[in-house]
Amino acid sequence: MTTTAFEPLTPDTLPARLGSITALTQRIGANASSWSVREVGDGNLNLVFIVQGSNGSVVVKQALPYVRLVGDSWPLPLKRSFFEYHALTRQAARSPGSVPEILHFDQAQALIVMEYLSPHIILRKALIMGRELPRIAEDLGLFTARTLFRGSDLHMSAATRKADLALFADNVDLCDITESLVFTDPYFEAPRNRHTSPQLDALVASLRADRDLKVEAQRMKHLFTANAETLLHGDLHTGSIMVTDEETKVIDPEFAFYGPIAFDIGMLLANYWMSYFSQGGHEQDGSRDSMRAYLLRTTTTTWSVFRCEFARLWRSERNGMLYARSLFEDAGDPLGAEQALDTFLHRVWEDLLGFAGVEIHRRILGLAHNAEFETIEDADLRAACETPALRFGRHIAVNRRHLHSIDEVNALVALIDRENRL
Amino acid sequence: MTTTAFEPLTPDTLPARLGSITALTQRIGANASSWSVREVGDGNLNLVFIVQGSNGSVVVKQALPYVRLVGDSWPLPLKRSFFEYHALTRQAARSPGSVPEILHFDQAQALIVMEYLSPHIILRKALIMGRELPRIAEDLGLFTARTLFRGSDLHMSAATRKADLALFADNVDLCDITESLVFTDPYFEAPRNRHTSPQLDALVASLRADRDLKVEAQRMKHLFTANAETLLHGDLHTGSIMVTDEETKVIDPEFAFYGPIAFDIGMLLANYWMSYFSQGGHEQDGSRDSMRAYLLRTTTTTWSVFRCEFARLWRSERNGMLYARSLFEDAGDPLGAEQALDTFLHRVWEDLLGFAGVEIHRRILGLAHNAEFETIEDADLRAACETPALRFGRHIAVNRRHLHSIDEVNALVALIDRENRL
Repeated sequence: MTTTAFEPLTPDTLPARLGSITALTQRIGANASSWSVREVGDGNLNLVFIVQGSNGSVVVKQALPYVRLVGDSWPLPLKRSFFEYHALTRQAARSPGSVPEILHFDQAQALIVMEYLSPHIILRKALIMGRELPRIAEDLGLFTARTLFRGSDLHMSAATRKADLALFADNVDLCDITESLVFTDPYFEAPRNRHTSPQLDALVASLRADRDLKVEAQRMKHLFTANAETLLHGDLHTGSIMVTDEETKVIDPEFAFYGPIAFDIGMLLANYWMSYFSQGGHEQDGSRDSMRAYLLRTTTTTWSVFRCEFARLWRSERNGMLYARSLFEDAGDPLGAEQALDTFLHRVWEDLLGFAGVEIHRRILGLAHNAEFETIEDADLRAACETPALRFGRHIAVNRRHLHSIDEVNALVALIDRENRL
Repeated sequence: MTTTAFEPLTPDTLPARLGSITALTQRIGANASSWSVREVGDGNLNLVFIVQGSNGSVVVKQALPYVRLVGDSWPLPLKRSFFEYHALTRQAARSPGSVPEILHFDQAQALIVMEYLSPHIILRKALIMGRELPRIAEDLGLFTARTLFRGSDLHMSAATRKADLALFADNVDLCDITESLVFTDPYFEAPRNRHTSPQLDALVASLRADRDLKVEAQRMKHLFTANAETLLHGDLHTGSIMVTDEETKVIDPEFAFYGPIAFDIGMLLANYWMSYFSQGGHEQDGSRDSMRAYLLRTTTTTWSVFRCEFARLWRSERNGMLYARSLFEDAGDPLGAEQALDTFLHRVWEDLLGFAGVEIHRRILGLAHNAEFETIEDADLRAACETPALRFGRHIAVNRRHLHSIDEVNALVALIDRENRL
């Protein structure tokens, strides 16, 4: 690379500009002029290229100085690439094998060269197709437990965590996207919002007039912005996960920052549940009842694996400053450590329901919608899927302290969905 | 100042080393050789000099590279002076008139030259003497409400708060003192602990075996270290407050960092309550019943003024990203903002009781004890004062979610104290 001033790559300029990076040429072949380059970015923010050489392929992800979904009227710092890189390295260390291998990072060009995952596809697309992925529940339960536990004061040294907190505190603009688009805009008539209209108009108006919901959504926002428990992925929806039947990889952590443990898990479960509610819009080729059952099993198993792994780490790697062994195990009180664990996880449970409810709302009322609903072309059918999702989101956000377990919540999902379809 | 490498001041070297600082000579007189210098530091950490010139006096506070209370076996970064300086400037802006005026700051020498407060004395000493200060409740209620509200995402811009959070995240060693000495050491047999022995031995052993108390203390520690709501003073006990009958000044914020709103208020109320429990040890010159009534009135008024002022700011200066007006007042729902305020303050109330309980324990079981108990020479009498304080601390920490109001808690204080004295 000869330039240092930022310049977006194109398929034409990429081989010349990256052709001398050893980590890249070693992986795919040194003859850059023979590389084939495709731009495949379909997310909201960045350029993504697949670069194929004689010996293999890599992905090149480059940030743009604005939001791709919106255009240069919405500037966004290139530094998000720096945060993505640092998040990926930490996730790789804390949950080995869960994220793509990083081959090269160029901060000035805001680009990351990484392993090309093939034949992986985006989990969201797989779920829309009705594919029952056998590994995601266990893999993502382990990923969340390991990254969220090992990035907290339960495990890290206080000085290391505080320095890392300061580093990621500069990820202001990406946090602002979440703070505005997830927690605030959906709950009033913000200019960037949209929803299936007129079918949802009355329900949307009632949600925006729902005092208890708004207060709870703002409480969740307060937790999001002030409760710096651990390094989050920050955008852990099913579009940030790539899958095969054998493997699960988590990508795109540019929203990473120190926030509440429950946020990543709540967003993940919300996306499973949205997939559930959307299945009725994708039954043209046959019933999705098996898929529905699979999705509820997947939420149950993800949360169960998370809790089991978190508990295992609590017992074996609780070496940080919180809940010190000197107070419990070393004082002959191992049951005290178990009581503390249960109290801890109970709070995570209550909070994840709040985050899940808000995530569901913003995907139907806000700016950035979900493909599982958006690909339902018939607006009446789409609204019929979105309606129970909105009602469910409101219910779990407001009643999050009184919902007993994941099985009860899943029963509620099935009930609300069924009542709507009859 | 000619040296740049850090060197502790002495009364002999101070005039020559600081004699050319204009802000200082303008205040007290240019003839440094005629200055009279006394070292008066009686805190745990720093050097404090009163410098008197022909026209007035100033205070010079200088950090030492170790904990003064313990000696150079316990190193402590000079940078705490930097955090103190930045905290003082923010507190002065957010709560004008509440902190000493800063005349000069020298980061390399870790020294702050500030207004000499006279005839102010340390609040803790005044309370031990039995003085009923007429202004502290209102002044400290306003100080806490203003600094804690205006340092949070209720008021600041997100980018400013996140940058400030990153700046104070480096105050690792002072946070570590609180994290270790307040939240952990008191609850097991840590080498640095001491207590009135043998009188308290049985009670101390029972507290250290109290599972519910330990779990709750660790929950408070988790809130302390992860819940970065606002810029705290961080050490707001009655030794950090200087008073006359007319004026209240808050000093010594070197423990400042972003933490939970409830921490400063909880520590302050805990120190009022400890003063109450200590009064029985200071009745040699007459009954302290009037002082007891005064102290309970003071807790009630402090908390009431805090809530009123916080509510006023909530209604008039809620310009940050949390609980946006667009969702409530601007959507025709001012009662929604009131509901959110009450929910917010209720959580502060529950948490401050937890922090207060832990603060009381660490002052009787830990390393840094309180003068109100320490100055009771008769160990039996001292233990008779400390015992109800310990029991009260345990009660409010463990039952903090079920205590209705400050009046109920004060009734409990009086009850526990009276039962012990009979």
